[in-house]
Amino acid sequence: MATQEKKPENLQHSNEYSIHLSNPNISEMKEDILYHFNLGTKTHDLQAMFGNVKFVCVGGSPTRMKAFTGYIGEELGLSQPGMDHPNICEGTDRYAMYKIGPVLSISHGMGVPSIGIMLHELIKLLYHAKCSDVVIIRIGTCGGIGLEPGSVVLTRKATDSCFKPEFEQFVLGKRIVRSTELSDDLNQELMACAKELNEFNTVVANTMCTLDFYEGQARLDGAFCSYTDKDKQEYLQAAYDAGIRNIEMESSIFAAMCGASGIKAAVVCVTLLNRLKEDQISSSHEVLVEYQKRPQKLVGHFIKKRLGRKA
Amino acid sequence: MATQEKKPENLQHSNEYSIHLSNPNISEMKEDILYHFNLGTKTHDLQAMFGNVKFVCVGGSPTRMKAFTGYIGEELGLSQPGMDHPNICEGTDRYAMYKIGPVLSISHGMGVPSIGIMLHELIKLLYHAKCSDVVIIRIGTCGGIGLEPGSVVLTRKATDSCFKPEFEQFVLGKRIVRSTELSDDLNQELMACAKELNEFNTVVANTMCTLDFYEGQARLDGAFCSYTDKDKQEYLQAAYDAGIRNIEMESSIFAAMCGASGIKAAVVCVTLLNRLKEDQISSSHEVLVEYQKRPQKLVGHFIKKRLGRKA
Repeated sequence: MATQEKKPENLQHSNEYSIHLSNPNISEMKEDILYHFNLGTKTHDLQAMFGNVKFVCVGGSPTRMKAFTGYIGEELGLSQPGMDHPNICEGTDRYAMYKIGPVLSISHGMGVPSIGIMLHELIKLLYHAKCSDVVIIRIGTCGGIGLEPGSVVLTRKATDSCFKPEFEQFVLGKRIVRSTELSDDLNQELMACAKELNEFNTVVANTMCTLDFYEGQARLDGAFCSYTDKDKQEYLQAAYDAGIRNIEMESSIFAAMCGASGIKAAVVCVTLLNRLKEDQISSSHEVLVEYQKRPQKLVGHFIKKRLGRKA
Repeated sequence: MATQEKKPENLQHSNEYSIHLSNPNISEMKEDILYHFNLGTKTHDLQAMFGNVKFVCVGGSPTRMKAFTGYIGEELGLSQPGMDHPNICEGTDRYAMYKIGPVLSISHGMGVPSIGIMLHELIKLLYHAKCSDVVIIRIGTCGGIGLEPGSVVLTRKATDSCFKPEFEQFVLGKRIVRSTELSDDLNQELMACAKELNEFNTVVANTMCTLDFYEGQARLDGAFCSYTDKDKQEYLQAAYDAGIRNIEMESSIFAAMCGASGIKAAVVCVTLLNRLKEDQISSSHEVLVEYQKRPQKLVGHFIKKRLGRKA
């Protein structure tokens, strides 16, 4: 039997409106090494480096997150076209991290464990840096269900592969379950931005988060396939009927960890294909590149509005 | 209830002693796009590019896999020091891939989903390339349990976080379970190589594979921690008593997918710390770099012996 996790009593706050660190050990440690970032509390002045961060944007690909940094820098008038942005996590190739003004961009690789390690270290980083009022947004790619390719989905709830809105995890060999609801307010704010932009179809819907891209997403083209096209169609239709409009591989742990830390968060993913029609991502490179810019544009518009810049 | 998966009846062989592709759809597809490798059957002559591959070495970090390519190239007399090796997966930053003679090196990122996507596409690649007699070895890093840091562990069985030697997966929302046993023969061959080298402690043992690095591995220093040091010690001691000597994040799906495809496989990981004593990886950069070379040295020795080179 799983136990629904209770909120821990001993939340450690860096200050008001700030990061809830549900681990009393951290404040007692002489040094905290954020190993996969190649950063640490003794080797780096994290408050000086990150204290003014208000927006953290995360995505799978390091190249895309670097490009986003250049884009948002130009939009905010903080960088020039072609300006190089140094990788703060130089010295490790686990993740890449860039910063421009109040915006931090980090790559998280693919899948729940990869983004999970990053989020543990990011939440500790924001705590050590005494950040407050931070919003974290995942900008990613996904498969759509019954949507035109290129549509952008704002995740209401992340579900598992049985369509349940929860994230299951094993701690000391025991199953615990965390909620995967995301901020309604933030989704409404993002949807208003999408309407102002009026450049692509945007919906708020449930997102299925899987641990595998092929069998786990009912694809017929993996190295293994023990089901028929009919089985696949029935499964994807059942997902559609459960309010799911896209499938990706990070949203559940992202929603769970941000939620449990009291951080407002959103998942903004563009669909690269319609899984009711196809399994392979076969659009041209140019089309895919344009699709991948859509979450960046939407989140760029949101950040500008929040900062009171002319959007 | 989980069902133990039966071997599918319609295995697709590329030829004898070769890759079992447990998906009858692939041979009927006009084109197979290996999306995360940026390779495809129409755009690339996979047989010409990869037909002679006999050893595939995989590891989390792209930098480390590039370094391994240089190392093994020199060891086999196929490359010079400082020679550059092009990334075959240029055009995507999801994985990096290098080839020198019969040795293919690929990075897989961190965690089960990330290595899973790579293995689906790798197994299809080897099938399309009509490879035979291929051995796949994961060379990685891990936390040790009761071993001196720098020890190398050859995985006998990969276990889940409840110490069960199985890999659980959800396909069409239903739980299936795959075996995670690795090749005894290959472990014996590798152990013989370790004895010949006689440079570092090497053991054959069970490996626990987790979906998280912090809570999932009973660390006290994550963004969340709801258990005591005593709880942690009891859990790690129970793992030790179950024959587990190291913890990492990819071995279970690696063993399961290679096994189900009829590919001989091994997991060779070096321990960066002893988890009975510490949680943070605090050794110096130089010490960690030397540790990370140990699996490369062992596997390099193994490859040279297999190829009949003077080891």
